[in-house]
Amino acid sequence: MRAIAVHRGEESPRVIDVPTPEPDPGEVLVETLRVGVDGTDHEVIKGTHGGFPPGDDYQILGHEAIGVVVDPTTTGFDVGDLVMPTVRRPPDGTNEYFERGEPDMAPDGKYVERGIVDAHGYMSEYFTSPTEFLVEIPESLAPHGFLVEPMSNAEKALEHAFATRSAFTWEPESALVLGNGPLGLLTLARLARDVDDLYCLGRRDRPDPSIDIIEKLGATYVDSRETPVPEIPAEHGHVDIAVEATGYAKHAFEVLDALAPNGVGALLGVPGDWSFEIEGGRLHREMVLQNKALVGSVNSHIPHFEDAIETVSSLPDWFVDDIVTEVVPAEDPSAAFERNTDQIKTAVEFVSPSER
Amino acid sequence: MRAIAVHRGEESPRVIDVPTPEPDPGEVLVETLRVGVDGTDHEVIKGTHGGFPPGDDYQILGHEAIGVVVDPTTTGFDVGDLVMPTVRRPPDGTNEYFERGEPDMAPDGKYVERGIVDAHGYMSEYFTSPTEFLVEIPESLAPHGFLVEPMSNAEKALEHAFATRSAFTWEPESALVLGNGPLGLLTLARLARDVDDLYCLGRRDRPDPSIDIIEKLGATYVDSRETPVPEIPAEHGHVDIAVEATGYAKHAFEVLDALAPNGVGALLGVPGDWSFEIEGGRLHREMVLQNKALVGSVNSHIPHFEDAIETVSSLPDWFVDDIVTEVVPAEDPSAAFERNTDQIKTAVEFVSPSER
Repeated sequence: MRAIAVHRGEESPRVIDVPTPEPDPGEVLVETLRVGVDGTDHEVIKGTHGGFPPGDDYQILGHEAIGVVVDPTTTGFDVGDLVMPTVRRPPDGTNEYFERGEPDMAPDGKYVERGIVDAHGYMSEYFTSPTEFLVEIPESLAPHGFLVEPMSNAEKALEHAFATRSAFTWEPESALVLGNGPLGLLTLARLARDVDDLYCLGRRDRPDPSIDIIEKLGATYVDSRETPVPEIPAEHGHVDIAVEATGYAKHAFEVLDALAPNGVGALLGVPGDWSFEIEGGRLHREMVLQNKALVGSVNSHIPHFEDAIETVSSLPDWFVDDIVTEVVPAEDPSAAFERNTDQIKTAVEFVSPSER
Repeated sequence: MRAIAVHRGEESPRVIDVPTPEPDPGEVLVETLRVGVDGTDHEVIKGTHGGFPPGDDYQILGHEAIGVVVDPTTTGFDVGDLVMPTVRRPPDGTNEYFERGEPDMAPDGKYVERGIVDAHGYMSEYFTSPTEFLVEIPESLAPHGFLVEPMSNAEKALEHAFATRSAFTWEPESALVLGNGPLGLLTLARLARDVDDLYCLGRRDRPDPSIDIIEKLGATYVDSRETPVPEIPAEHGHVDIAVEATGYAKHAFEVLDALAPNGVGALLGVPGDWSFEIEGGRLHREMVLQNKALVGSVNSHIPHFEDAIETVSSLPDWFVDDIVTEVVPAEDPSAAFERNTDQIKTAVEFVSPSER
């Protein structure tokens, strides 16, 4: 079957031919419709995040897949069910994190991530999965259900951010998303449901399709070249929630200056190594005297996927149309991996959702 | 009446004579028994934290007071009731934070702190208080009930730390307290109730009374000169909870290295300005990929005092005897403000609890 993989020593993914997987009893065989591409895929391609499956010199990409059950084996699924797989798997049998349904909280060594860490992904014509790692997706989401996986990461980050503030009365009125890539824009759309006063930080010149989306969501675009993060309060006021979705390491600390008292910063982006000076005494003091919190968040578990299904289902049509800038055929997927300011979210298509 | 105050331009507090306050209807007049001294008092004396009451060139110290109601006016209190006042007061009338019983979450400008920020403290023969800011203290705590206020700060910090971890299954098995001063040791004693594997960081040579307390609590003393915070995991393993109680600014960031995956650092100490270099990219990345959290915490509200009463009541007698190293008479309180390695927690006594 056709698969899209990155090879050791190569800079771009390419189409390869691999054997079609055969489901064991209790697994299902899924025919892939579409697979979204995100920043993590670009890190995997560059080799800065994750790792190849042990023993292989290539890795099949893809962790945002939507597909259709074609062989349910002994499971309760039916042929034709629309499903999305979760990303993490236990490396050996199972462990306590998977047993209690919280693989997203598993530490290093207690998980692999399909398409990211030590396991092949879903960017192939077929994949198999145990049923416990599949989420049923409503038919209406067949075309853009691949947005559910990244949205589930936003759901988890916000759940944890709100948890940090659960010991007191907290009604956030303003939020800042750092980053106008796909994850930033999805997080912004999720926040727009609950928060009126929204900001999104980027560093793009107008005209730019991501700025258009920010403004159509009713949010204010903040150009970080004109208004660096610590200057946001003077320009726009402090924010109750900030979500870091760029992986720019200074943001994790600068964001403390943008937060209102009792505010929380949720960190989703994954930076590389970088040492730099911070006003550590002042930031530490303000965290204490103003009851501020920072929380890191990675991956997601099934209830976050379920929340994300609801959120993605409620997204306005224009948002989905605008954020998914290109769906490219699996036969020639290179355009899905190009990075330019016209592209926001891309996906690779194996089977057209309308033709299945 | 006698009061102990710090004056502008002076390095040490001294005894002064001020008018005895008169309670308004709805307030009570309290005769002070004992007032604890802590690190915040030393910061107030040095002028590095808080501020004098507007218009005054002195500030009566003291925010850890225990006393006896001598005039209940129109309130439901009785003469002889043992009480402790909370610290924060609304600056003008009231505001939403006080109205909902969460003054500890009030931002700058929405509170004063008696004995710390813009208001006189309790280190005087008498003080008045509205009843809503008084907590009844059991008779058994008359001698050392002044430990309730600092313990309430530990209760709040731990409540907020646990809240940050409330969105998933989390059963902390190890904890590190940074700081072997009174607040650090009280926090350690509080943690000893729930956590088996305990560490306390200091930089003292043996023999030292705080190290003796650490070890009698069953905790391991970590000398930061031999084992800096980032090396604690290699020496002792990672910890699930860390509480920063020194105000040493680098700790707030270094502590991320000491935390196990899914761990939380609670920040209680208040540092001054200090800029320094950190491995910001790595720390940010590990917060994300290991789901770590940092939470700042200041002050406390009535339920934290109530929890602290229970905790202080359950402290072993030896702990109270060992941590309260000196109780000095209000007539000559200077020894209560001396800082040396033999002193841990001191208090100023106006009326002996056994003679009231």
